[in-house]
Amino acid sequence: NNPFDPTDHPHRRYNPLTGQYVLVSPHRAKRPWSGQDEKHSEEVLPTYDNGCFLCPGNTRVSGDVNPAYDGTFVFDNDFAALMRDSPSPEESDHPLFKIEGARGLSRVICFSPDHSKTLPELSLKAIRGVIETWNEQIESLGKDYLWVQAFENKGEAMGCSQPHPHGQIWANSFLPNEIAQKETFLKAYLQEHGSNLLLDYVKAEMADGSRTVVETQHWLAVVPYWAAWPFETLLMPKAAIRRMEELRDEQRDDLALVLKKLTSRYDNLFQCPFPYSMGWHYAPFYEEGTDIEHWQLHAHFFPPLLRSATVRKFMVGYEMLAETQRDLTPEQAAERLRAVSDIHYKESAE
Amino acid sequence: NNPFDPTDHPHRRYNPLTGQYVLVSPHRAKRPWSGQDEKHSEEVLPTYDNGCFLCPGNTRVSGDVNPAYDGTFVFDNDFAALMRDSPSPEESDHPLFKIEGARGLSRVICFSPDHSKTLPELSLKAIRGVIETWNEQIESLGKDYLWVQAFENKGEAMGCSQPHPHGQIWANSFLPNEIAQKETFLKAYLQEHGSNLLLDYVKAEMADGSRTVVETQHWLAVVPYWAAWPFETLLMPKAAIRRMEELRDEQRDDLALVLKKLTSRYDNLFQCPFPYSMGWHYAPFYEEGTDIEHWQLHAHFFPPLLRSATVRKFMVGYEMLAETQRDLTPEQAAERLRAVSDIHYKESAE
Ligand SMILES: O=P(O)(O)O[C@H]1O[C@H](CO)[C@@H](O)[C@H](O)[C@H]1O
Ligand SMILES: O=P(O)(O)O[C@H]1O[C@H](CO)[C@@H](O)[C@H](O)[C@H]1O
Repeated sequence: NNPFDPTDHPHRRYNPLTGQYVLVSPHRAKRPWSGQDEKHSEEVLPTYDNGCFLCPGNTRVSGDVNPAYDGTFVFDNDFAALMRDSPSPEESDHPLFKIEGARGLSRVICFSPDHSKTLPELSLKAIRGVIETWNEQIESLGKDYLWVQAFENKGEAMGCSQPHPHGQIWANSFLPNEIAQKETFLKAYLQEHGSNLLLDYVKAEMADGSRTVVETQHWLAVVPYWAAWPFETLLMPKAAIRRMEELRDEQRDDLALVLKKLTSRYDNLFQCPFPYSMGWHYAPFYEEGTDIEHWQLHAHFFPPLLRSATVRKFMVGYEMLAETQRDLTPEQAAERLRAVSDIHYKESAE
Repeated sequence: NNPFDPTDHPHRRYNPLTGQYVLVSPHRAKRPWSGQDEKHSEEVLPTYDNGCFLCPGNTRVSGDVNPAYDGTFVFDNDFAALMRDSPSPEESDHPLFKIEGARGLSRVICFSPDHSKTLPELSLKAIRGVIETWNEQIESLGKDYLWVQAFENKGEAMGCSQPHPHGQIWANSFLPNEIAQKETFLKAYLQEHGSNLLLDYVKAEMADGSRTVVETQHWLAVVPYWAAWPFETLLMPKAAIRRMEELRDEQRDDLALVLKKLTSRYDNLFQCPFPYSMGWHYAPFYEEGTDIEHWQLHAHFFPPLLRSATVRKFMVGYEMLAETQRDLTPEQAAERLRAVSDIHYKESAE
């Protein structure tokens, strides 16, 4: 009889999407905390703020005026990390000083005209609008760029500098690290097992249930077996979908639903706007004919909070120099997220 | 004539220690910032604080009483992420649910009895004492463990929960991700080029100079060509040293000097205790006879600040989902660090 108890004994779990391990130290959640507190303001934001660069009708740093928009609103980032046609450096074959050109663009997506409403507080129809915008942007930029990263940084703890709810789209002429790595691992899995890693995984998690946070007709959100962040989740369609554009209408409606429920559970956990970075991964825009059977659409949510609205997990010294470490098991995290309502605390109070 | 200008045009640089790229967007440093401000207190700490768990003579959470120590003081962490003999899970051959046992221990090193003095403010003799303690701990734990990670999280921004200057030592029965990855890259380089990667690199940087931050007789600190964090540095001995224990006396004395100068430049940059995570890498404690010629002792410093004592770089959405991105070139960062004195601002004011 093995005395090993995953809720008590340190162990390592393997992330098959990155080939990296995470050190799970479940007994550690008990330690006292006297470090940095995150800001958590109970301040209620106005629906319109005339000092906000993203609100309808306002003027941005660039001098451009936002239209009186209704649903989502997309504009080119005034301080993009990439340029459409910057020159490339001379090639060098020095193994220690390798450099290459990088082109792209960066856009901001305002989720709605309402300055005060984050994703879980939007109507299903408005969330469906965000999904349409993600898809349109990804599909059209995919004609010119190898990779298009759609993401949201939510909350000051995640480096978000504008409270008006918004996401970003960065298009890249190159395959960024994380995608190149996933390409390798997904492909190797298909070659070895003859099946799609993420489709096998979604089936295994549906059968197990212990890491499930939200399940809808077409989608499943779990705290993955190899989660790094305390309440990290992986959102997957149940059917084979290589890119967002392949989603049928009912899968998109259902995506709005699962997003609303998942982000509501997040906010309900500590009764605060739960900070996170989230984003979409899917088959890169390779040349026609390139094999992409090993790919599957999915979203990652990386939320930093650990114990309360103000105490986060820091991925610092040991984590940066040696290995990611977490303080509760993924199953414990999923259980806590399941234990709160999937209706947002502000809505249920209304 | 190539119009490419690294201080103006986005590009990617390759990290030969990890196989990953970093996206350099030097024009981006100009964007306005209205996000989270880090706390930066001008408060002067007392040399002794009776509420501090780490000060001499005080009682810790565990009930243990700290001795009236003089130099460094090492004790077992009361909330260690690892245990000395926890049981291992049953082996499983499921490719998506891989788990393994992990054993180890975790210690705290108080750098000095003085509650108020961080590394750059200590005397060379006291820093030399810290070096001795690192070495003793690593050497003795290396007899029982495959990996011993010595590191320091400095400042609240880096998750440090105790202001009393201290570092940590985590011993591991396994090879953590970062070390396993480095093992692969260092070995492949030696096989391909017939020389040691980090020895080739230290020579190349000494010859170039544009990324040098501090050079002493036996040591060189540079902002590496592939730096991720704005003012990240890599500290390398000039001679072949596979593990800390191989350092001769004069190399240790000189290490105290280079550490004092490097961390003083950090503090001087924004006239504040510059937060960072730092730590040591070197040849793991493999079985006798295992080839470690590809290894070389070195330290990484990962400091988060970007523009001032209160504005940091956030590695969030794009960085987590796609690729690390930086807002100034490593050469610009090195130049700024060289432009400030290597004598600490508090010492020069005395
Ligand atoms: O052990 P400490 O200093 O309490 O904790 C700090 O360092 C650890 C090791 O890097 C991290 O796991 C924690 O998230 C961080 O807050
Ligand atoms: O573009 P923003 O929202 O101003 O900036 C934020 O997101 C970017 C993309 O993840 C990061 O590079 C920045 O560090 C972060 O502050």
